[in-house]
Order: sequence, then C-alpha cells, then structure tokens
Amino acid sequence: MRIGILTGGGDCPGLNAVIRAVVRKATAAGDEVVGFRDGWRGLLDDDAVPLDLAAVRGLLPRGGTVLGTSRTNPYGSPDGPARVLATLERHRVDALVPVGGEDTLGVAAKLAAEGVRVVGVPKTIDNDLDGTDYTFGFDTAVGVAMEAIDRLHTTGDSHHRTLVVEVMGRHAGWIALHAGMAGGATVVLVPERPFDVDAVVAHCLHRFDSGFSPIVVVSEGARPADGALVTATGQTDAFGHVRLGGIGAALAAVLEERTGRESRAVVLGHVQRGGTPSAFDRVLATRFGLAAVDALAAGLSGVMVALRGTDVVPVPIAEATARLKLVPLERYAEVEVFFG
Amino acid sequence: MRIGILTGGGDCPGLNAVIRAVVRKATAAGDEVVGFRDGWRGLLDDDAVPLDLAAVRGLLPRGGTVLGTSRTNPYGSPDGPARVLATLERHRVDALVPVGGEDTLGVAAKLAAEGVRVVGVPKTIDNDLDGTDYTFGFDTAVGVAMEAIDRLHTTGDSHHRTLVVEVMGRHAGWIALHAGMAGGATVVLVPERPFDVDAVVAHCLHRFDSGFSPIVVVSEGARPADGALVTATGQTDAFGHVRLGGIGAALAAVLEERTGRESRAVVLGHVQRGGTPSAFDRVLATRFGLAAVDALAAGLSGVMVALRGTDVVPVPIAEATARLKLVPLERYAEVEVFFG
Amino acid sequence: MRIGILTGGGDCPGLNAVIRAVVRKATAAGDEVVGFRDGWRGLLDDDAVPLDLAAVRGLLPRGGTVLGTSRTNPYGSPDGPARVLATLERHRVDALVPVGGEDTLGVAAKLAAEGVRVVGVPKTIDNDLDGTDYTFGFDTAVGVAMEAIDRLHTTGDSHHRTLVVEVMGRHAGWIALHAGMAGGATVVLVPERPFDVDAVVAHCLHRFDSGFSPIVVVSEGARPADGALVTATGQTDAFGHVRLGGIGAALAAVLEERTGRESRAVVLGHVQRGGTPSAFDRVLATRFGLAAVDALAAGLSGVMVALRGTDVVPVPIAEATARLKLVPLERYAEVEVFFG
Amino acid sequence: MRIGILTGGGDCPGLNAVIRAVVRKATAAGDEVVGFRDGWRGLLDDDAVPLDLAAVRGLLPRGGTVLGTSRTNPYGSPDGPARVLATLERHRVDALVPVGGEDTLGVAAKLAAEGVRVVGVPKTIDNDLDGTDYTFGFDTAVGVAMEAIDRLHTTGDSHHRTLVVEVMGRHAGWIALHAGMAGGATVVLVPERPFDVDAVVAHCLHRFDSGFSPIVVVSEGARPADGALVTATGQTDAFGHVRLGGIGAALAAVLEERTGRESRAVVLGHVQRGGTPSAFDRVLATRFGLAAVDALAAGLSGVMVALRGTDVVPVPIAEATARLKLVPLERYAEVEVFFG
Repeated sequence: MRIGILTGGGDCPGLNAVIRAVVRKATAAGDEVVGFRDGWRGLLDDDAVPLDLAAVRGLLPRGGTVLGTSRTNPYGSPDGPARVLATLERHRVDALVPVGGEDTLGVAAKLAAEGVRVVGVPKTIDNDLDGTDYTFGFDTAVGVAMEAIDRLHTTGDSHHRTLVVEVMGRHAGWIALHAGMAGGATVVLVPERPFDVDAVVAHCLHRFDSGFSPIVVVSEGARPADGALVTATGQTDAFGHVRLGGIGAALAAVLEERTGRESRAVVLGHVQRGGTPSAFDRVLATRFGLAAVDALAAGLSGVMVALRGTDVVPVPIAEATARLKLVPLERYAEVEVFFG
Repeated sequence: MRIGILTGGGDCPGLNAVIRAVVRKATAAGDEVVGFRDGWRGLLDDDAVPLDLAAVRGLLPRGGTVLGTSRTNPYGSPDGPARVLATLERHRVDALVPVGGEDTLGVAAKLAAEGVRVVGVPKTIDNDLDGTDYTFGFDTAVGVAMEAIDRLHTTGDSHHRTLVVEVMGRHAGWIALHAGMAGGATVVLVPERPFDVDAVVAHCLHRFDSGFSPIVVVSEGARPADGALVTATGQTDAFGHVRLGGIGAALAAVLEERTGRESRAVVLGHVQRGGTPSAFDRVLATRFGLAAVDALAAGLSGVMVALRGTDVVPVPIAEATARLKLVPLERYAEVEVFFG
Repeated sequence: MRIGILTGGGDCPGLNAVIRAVVRKATAAGDEVVGFRDGWRGLLDDDAVPLDLAAVRGLLPRGGTVLGTSRTNPYGSPDGPARVLATLERHRVDALVPVGGEDTLGVAAKLAAEGVRVVGVPKTIDNDLDGTDYTFGFDTAVGVAMEAIDRLHTTGDSHHRTLVVEVMGRHAGWIALHAGMAGGATVVLVPERPFDVDAVVAHCLHRFDSGFSPIVVVSEGARPADGALVTATGQTDAFGHVRLGGIGAALAAVLEERTGRESRAVVLGHVQRGGTPSAFDRVLATRFGLAAVDALAAGLSGVMVALRGTDVVPVPIAEATARLKLVPLERYAEVEVFFG
Repeated sequence: MRIGILTGGGDCPGLNAVIRAVVRKATAAGDEVVGFRDGWRGLLDDDAVPLDLAAVRGLLPRGGTVLGTSRTNPYGSPDGPARVLATLERHRVDALVPVGGEDTLGVAAKLAAEGVRVVGVPKTIDNDLDGTDYTFGFDTAVGVAMEAIDRLHTTGDSHHRTLVVEVMGRHAGWIALHAGMAGGATVVLVPERPFDVDAVVAHCLHRFDSGFSPIVVVSEGARPADGALVTATGQTDAFGHVRLGGIGAALAAVLEERTGRESRAVVLGHVQRGGTPSAFDRVLATRFGLAAVDALAAGLSGVMVALRGTDVVPVPIAEATARLKLVPLERYAEVEVFFG
C-alpha cells in the first residue's frame, strides 16, 4: 500500500507526531508513505516528498508541521478535484490520510464520496470538532495559557491591577474554560454565552475586596451581551480573525474605566499554537496516526479516527463535521462557581 | 451541611486542587468544611483544621497536600473505627470526602457500610484504579518523565550511550507506556509483561545501528522473564518498594555488558510526584472536587467520582476498587511498534 | 537593629526572594524587619507589616512582591519627606532597604542625604540600571521571551509567515538582544538604534528564500529611522507606555504589505514580568538581599548592592543612577551577524 | 581561512550553539568550517564532516552535540599527535576550535605549543574551570536541579520526609550551591568542605520542628568528615565516578536512622546535562563561538575565550586550566544562613 499524507488549516502541536506515527506504522507493515506539502495545495500542484523512517526521526517533540500547511480548497476551482486525482494517480497513492479540521476533512469526505480511500485525522486547537472527545494541540494550548495566567497572578496582585487574558477560541470557549479553571481565573468569558459587562465589573470589584487582583480570561470570540463594546475597537483581518486590539484590549479599557483600577490586556496569540506538544498531545497524536493506518489496513474509508474515553475508534467524517462542539454550559454548571 | 475532607496514601499533584474545589463549592452553597490531617490519622487522633475560602486561596497550582498524608488504616486497630466515628461526631461532620487510592477508599467503603455518608475522590499517580478513565497526578508524572526523556535523548546521542529511565509503576505500566510513547523511547518495559532481556539487547543494538542511541523506559515494577536480574541488585524497603539500585540500575548494568556500549540509569523517583500539577490535572482535580460536593448534595453515599470520557460521574466505590486497572496490552497492539 | 524594607516601581521576579533573604539574614543576626506596603506609599501612609521567618516562608519561588508596589514619590508633595521620616521614627526603624529602579533609588539617595541610613537593592527588568552587571528579573523575562520565540518558530515555518515579537524595553534593548540571540531571531530591533524598514524587509525576504520563516524581535521602545511608522498606530497610556497596538502590530502590518507574506504580531506584555523567577534570578536576588544586610551591618549608607563579575559589592547610589545602561552596540558587533 | 571544530569530554547544553555560532560567523566572513566527530578521536581517525549554514540550522535550542564527543586523548598513544597533524593537513585546516574542559583544552594547549593555531572554548557543566566567570551548561543544570527541588518540597512536606537530592559536582560544589540557594534547600553539602553528619541531622530536626520537611542538596563528590559513610555503600565505575547508590542514597539511609523520619534520595544524574539550554547558556555559548572566530581572525592562538563580567575576552589556556575553580566558601559566608 502507498499512503499519502497532508496537513491542512491552522498548525497545531502534534501534527509532526501524527506524520511520524503514520510513517513508522506503515513502514513496519511494508507500506510506503508520500507527503504532500501545504495541505491540499500539494495535491493541486503536485508538490510531494517521500517520507521514510529517516525523514521522521526527531519529529515527535517538534511543533508545527514539516509538511507545511495552507487553507487551499481544491473544490474552490473547477479543475481542482481532477488535478488532485491526477496527482494521486501519478504518485500511485492507494489511500490518503488528511490531517485537519472542518474544512480539510470536508474535502476529504467529498473525495471519499468520489471513490478515494480516505481516513482522516481530526485537528483543531480549539477542540470544537464534534465526534471526538479531544483533539491534539488543545492540551498544549491550555498549558501555555495556564502558565501565562500563573505568571499574571503575581504581577496583578503586586500592582493591584485587573489583567485580561485573551485566548484562542473563535466559536467555542474550550481553551478559555480549561485555562481559566486550571489557572484559577476570577471570570471566564466564552463565545457560547454573551457576557454581561456589569456582572464582570462586579466580580472584579469583589475580587479586589478580598485583597487580590482579578484575572479575566476571555475567548477571542466572546462578545458582550449588548454588542457595543467591540464596535469601537475590534479589528478583523482578511480571514475574519479578530487581531490585536480585539476583545481583550477593549475589555481591559472598559474595566479600567468601570472599576477605577488599572487594567492591562495580554493577548497570547500564536504562542498558544507553536512549540513542543505536551505529553497528552504527543500520545494522542501518535495514537491517531497509528489508528489511521490500522483503519486503512482494515479497508475503511470515509472515516476519521476519534478519541472516545480511552479508546481511539473510527467514526464517519460526515457525522463528525456536521456541527461544532460547543461548551455545554449546563453540564459545566458544576464549575459555575468559577465563572462570574 | 458540614463536610470533612482528608487525603491519604502517596501524595499526588492535584490534591490541593481537590481540597480547594470542595471548599469553594461547599462555601458557595452555605456548607462548612473541616480538614483532617495526615489521612485517617487525623480522624483517629482528632487532628482537625477548619477550611474556609482564605485557607484555600493560592492552593490550585501547589503540589502536595496542605492536609498532609499518611498510610494509617483505622481498621488496623480494634478501637480505630469507633475513634473515627467519635471524631466525626465531635466535629458534627455530616459527610466525608476521603481523597485517596485503593486503601483509603477501601476504608471509605467500610465506613459507608457502617452508615457514614461518604463520597470518595480517587487518587493514584500510577493511574491503576479501575472505574475511572484517568486519575489526577498521572498526567503531571508523565509530563515530568517525558521532559526527562527529551533531555536524555541529546546526552545519549552525544555519548553513544544507552540510557535506562526508571519511572513509577509498581503494578501497572501506564506511566512508562505514556512517557515512553511521548518521549519516543526505543523500548518500554511494563509490569504487565515480563520482559525478554535478549529482545531488549537486540532493540538497543538496532537503534545504535541507525546512528542514534537507545532510551529504555522501565516501570519500577517491571521484571525480566527469567527473574535472575533483580535478585542480584534490587533492594526493597520496609514498604516493599524497590529503592535506588533497583530495576533501572540492574538493567543498565546488564545492557552495558551485553551491548558493549556504556549504559547509564536515571531513576526519576519522587520528582514525578511533586510540584505544580499540569493543566489537565488541575482541571480534573477541580472537577472531581466539585462533583464530590454535588454528589453529597444529591444524597449519594458509598460512591466515588470518576471520569468517563469527558463526564465526571459517581460510581460505586466497591466496583472501582475491586481490581487494578492494568495496561490492556492487546489494545495497545496499535503501539506495538514502539515496544521492543 | 530594626530594618525597614519596601519594593517600588514595576514588579519583577525576585522581589520576594530579596525580602526573604533580608528577613532571614537579619533574623539570624538578632535584627528585626518591618515591611512597608506599596513602595514609598507605605511610608507616607504608615502602612506597615512586621516580617519574621514565618512571614517569608515559601516566598523564594513566588513572583511579584508580597509587599505590593507603586510609583508613589514622597518628594512629589511638600510634606512627603517629613511624613516618611515620621513613619520611620514611629516604627523605630534604624535603616532602610528600598528595592527598586531609578525612581525608587533616587528617593533613597535623597533620604540618605538627609541622614537616613539606606542601602538600596537595584531592580529593573529591562536591565538598564548602570552600576551593576545584571539585575534580577531580567534573566526570567529573557527566558519567557525565548520560550515564546521557540514556539513561534514552528508555527511561522508551518504557515510561511513572518512573526513579530514585541518584548519589553522602553529605553534599552537588553531583553530583545538576549531573547533574540537565545531564540535565533532573524532580526533584532532595539531602542538604541533607529531601524531601517527596508533592511528589515530585505532580511525577512532572505530568510524566506532559505525555506524558513523570519522571526523579528522588537523592543517596545524601538522606532524606525524615518519615524512615520508609529504615528499611524502607536498609542500611549497615561504613563507614556506604548500599549497594545504599538510597534509590534505596526511593524507586522508594514512587513505584510512590503514582503507580500502574511505577518502576525505577538506582544508578550506582562507575562514577561510575572511568575516564578529563574534560578539565576533567585540566586542573584538572594545574594542582593543578604549583601544589603551585610552592608548595613558594616555601617554603610547611601549605597546600593551591585553585581560585578561574580561578586556582589556596594556602590554609591548616585553613581549607579546617573545614567541608563544602554546596549553598547559597538561591543555587540560580535553578534552583528544576528541583527538585520 | 578553514576552521576545524570538535567537542570533547562530557556533553553539555550549549555545545550545538557554539558550533552554530562558529559556522555562522565564519561563513559570513567567507571562511569554511569542518567538524571532527567525537572529540579528538575524529582527528585521530580522520572522521570529519563539512559544516555549512544548512548543517547548523535549528541547532540553537538542541542539547548535546551533533559532532558527538569522547574522552579520547591523542597524547595517549605515541603516534597520536602526528596523526592529528596529518588529519589537519589533509583537510587544509588553518585553525582549530576545540570545545571542552580541562582535558580537551590541555591537548589544545600542547598542540598550540607545537605550532597549530588554536582558540579553545571552555566547557564544564560543573563550572569549575578557572579563568572564566561562568561556562555554558551550568545555568541549565542548576535550573533542572532547582525545578526538581521545587517539586520535592511539596512531596516532602506532605509526607513529613527528608529528601536528599544528589546533584553533579565531583570536585566543586557550584551546582549544589546555586541549586540549593535557588531551591531553598535546608542544607547544602559540597566537596570543598567535608560535612559533619551530626550537624546535618540537627538541621533536619530543626526544620521538622518548624512544621516543614528538610531538603538536603549534596554534590556527588561531597564526603562526610569522618569518611565512614561512603565505604559502606558508594560504588565507583571504571572512570571513578560515583554511580547510583552513591552519596545521596548513603546519606538518606543515615538520616532516616538518625532522625527517625522517613528519608528518600533522588539522584538527578544525566537529566542535568541533557536537553535544551537555558537562555543564559544559549547567549553565552553563542558569544563564545563568535568570539573564538574573532580571536582567530585577530591572529591569536593558545588562548581560550572567557567570560569576565559581561565581556567575553581571550585568556591563555594554560592559565585557565592551571587549577580548578572551587567555591570560595569564605566569600559565600554571606549565604552561611542557608547551609547547615
């Protein structure tokens, strides 16, 4: 068997671990692996690189992806799918392992429907992909954010300042929720629930009353209930991402005014998605890679591997990408005490 | 409601996070909390301390347990149970939250049978307690071991030496398995399967042939198939623990002789169980603490909280402590490529 | 002897280690210590707390300052100095150890001139205080920035993006210089030398040509040679600090336009000054604290302790605060290869 | 100019940073670099590898040495020096940069005396090489040891146990001194002063009295004043190194018996010398590499680069290796409070 592999969408700690696991497992079984560069672009442009054991040595602890990544969508141009199929044929690829999020896996599902043997590996640092308990990269991002919060507690308390920490999460608040719980935040604001600025102010003042300074963790996609806050200061780039000067800075300015205490914003940004993966993510990414090869060997297609409890199992791609996995606020009623 | 809490057995990153969560959740509901020092000893000797919000401030990132711990078993002396009940009555404790492993929870189950309202919180750094997907502390220990392995790769390769890393795990190889997968170990040896020294030697030589140096991760409880190795060098202390000079050192000596290459052993020891918890463990410990109070509020007893997938649920203590959770080697056939 | 201690200006990892060392050394000699809260404000308002061994237990690894800090200047109001002297007398303080930067030590020098026994401890996270080789906190800040750069390399390379990292340093580029050297930055921009945007663009393009993505480290106080860049986007707060949306974001926008490649800015901000100190900073802060008590015991006043090579020695405060310690670019010609 | 480079003796975080800096600086000046493998062995056996910019890309954060290392001494065999000279001639090497400790630099000094152009770079993780304020690798090792001590405090306190931490340092106690100061050890034992077991016991008991548990940091080369302790349990390998079961374990056993409290030993071992260098070490190693090329360009030979204060300067090799740099206990009288 000859397996093609590619990584698409935003990068994530653990992508290299997936690549390495696929190559090691395939090689041990006598299969061959070819990598395509920059996601689907590599298949459109026939930009490929053979991957053997030597090529993946030392990849496990390295962040990013040696294959590069892009947001290219082959279904965006009329001849795209045909070019992909031609490239697959040219490299005699029997089966494809696309590693990516909603968009990348959406393309994978279409190709599977056209007869290409595909087993996907889910990837989203925001942890918002339905069908799997966790995706790799999320634990690392939460760890980076938690360490930042740990550091900010001491400087906040020393200066009697509010510190607002903006973390990733455009549609789902998983990183904010976990980093906030792990870091002992005073308030956690997530996209799933528009927040009440008055309530946030009240919690900050209550925290100051106890002799300590508040930490407010806010997802980049969180918005106030009345909507006015962001209009003034939020900026979006060509991809619709809120950039520097986004919700964190806007909120800090409002809190400084409303609480009468200095406030500062910290926007963690890309630091959250780079660097060496945590142990949890290295194990999960490795197991995903191994399971993808197993699934191909078992003749499956149109599925992605997923974590369910402690098991890695195949699930239909279509089912997994049908909707975003949001934080079920009602289930996290248990942590209500940690929110405002 | 007045809740008593204690921590028993070996310490673990996350114990303080459990204590903090219990106190915060209980306080928010108008309940009171009293802590007992050094596990069941505090109930035998009436060594108690009131726990309010101020007492648990800053505890989340701190390793160890502010309540102290011990291996005292109240059922070890004839009047033990009576003294425990008397202490509970003296402090007007309505319900007990014991945090601990097999032994601590075993006592909890007996007390529940005698009518004490008890909701346990499972704790084992080895992750070998049945009934819960994971226990807190394990992820931190794996992370510490992985970082050590990351460091050892570079020194091993520079000196062309075999490095043997002995990690915790007396009966189950979870830490060795996860740290070995995360660290890219050449060979992982676990208590569940007596290992074949010849095979280990062969894998080490194969690794040297590739131009890199082998890392062998071995659980403290792993033993060779023929049994001879340990007799020569292993030493056990009064608790039956293998101490320094245990399996790691013995194996390094054998590998040096058999491979003709220098070998060194590193025994990670207590570094694995101390220090600040990882984000995963802080979140899990916090959720366990919150869920224990919820379970008490719901009128449950004789149960412990457990992680099942992404849910925290109550399960009968007896069921959870009936047997050790060993590494299911057959399910990890998927990672066979990483073992010898 | 009764010693007063206070911490002023921006907080810094190591402040608590100084406080602990002063208290331990003084206590061992039979002296007493009293702490004043929030810098000189504590002396103006008589806000004091006794400090004994129990009060400083566990402080060594903790960031921030348990005494709090502020930028209050007693010479800012006509009766300020008299109130300070009155508070010192009320608490029978024989000698004062102010820990702080240029401003705090400037007040210390004036008080010394008025007859108060004063031995200062220098503190500036920017490392720009003349008279000492290094100040504590700087090494920690550089470490935090380096770890961020390590992480950003992988995400930059995966996405073929320029990443701009804005670090602290309003007047001196020490953090940018050291973090850039340690992190392997493509370009380092410091306040000491206005930068040439064309040259930065050229270096970024050259880096892309080699198949890797550029990292540009920029001090918050660095400015382009032609001055136009900042006018458009820089914002300053009431203290004259460049806030979010400062030089890093402006530079990223320009580089994106000029290189034709996506660019992103990361502003590390307060994460650099919070959290547990590095070993270097804990040792330096501890030695500073011990040496300050030694200097008082030796009858010195009007001096601050300073690191010279591996020695900690007393130097006149006036001499040390006369001018900023800038990066001697000519001496760092040796690292020219790392700049643009 | 054609420069040869090699790394000898025990490996150390920062060796790769030196290699990278030499290659970058030399390449920028139009010079060429060739690496010899495994220290002097590469020159004896003509085992060489050309080093260009591509070869050193990504090396800065990597521990160990890509050139490998050994303890081979060319002056150990009669034809050794001639073979070294022949290899140098064969590769048209104009100048040599040996990176190593006392032994490696001793060979370098002899070759310089025979007319080879040599500029050495000092390396010793123990920091015991005279003539330079610090050597790279030391700060990283101290950081690793400090983090371990931070972790051990919490587990020690929870179990009311003494924890003995054995760190590197055969002849000099720099790592123990700095890690002990940074970690807040109760007692620090160094090779420079034979220790009094009674005094150690007394300090441990005093620490228990305060409600906390003692941490004893001991250099691998520290010995008790009466000498009896080691005879029983110490083991040395073929190189005279004390191996597992050395002073740490022996001391823990004695302290358990003498204090009546459980004691455990942790031997940090090779974890201290592997892995990514700290920022301090990356900067120092980089500056050393750059300065070595500068010194060659300036026509120097028979010197090594050294850190003096904040300057990197050339010093005669002979002078620097004449004697070990021991901890000047009298100067550290300032930290007396931290020892027993």
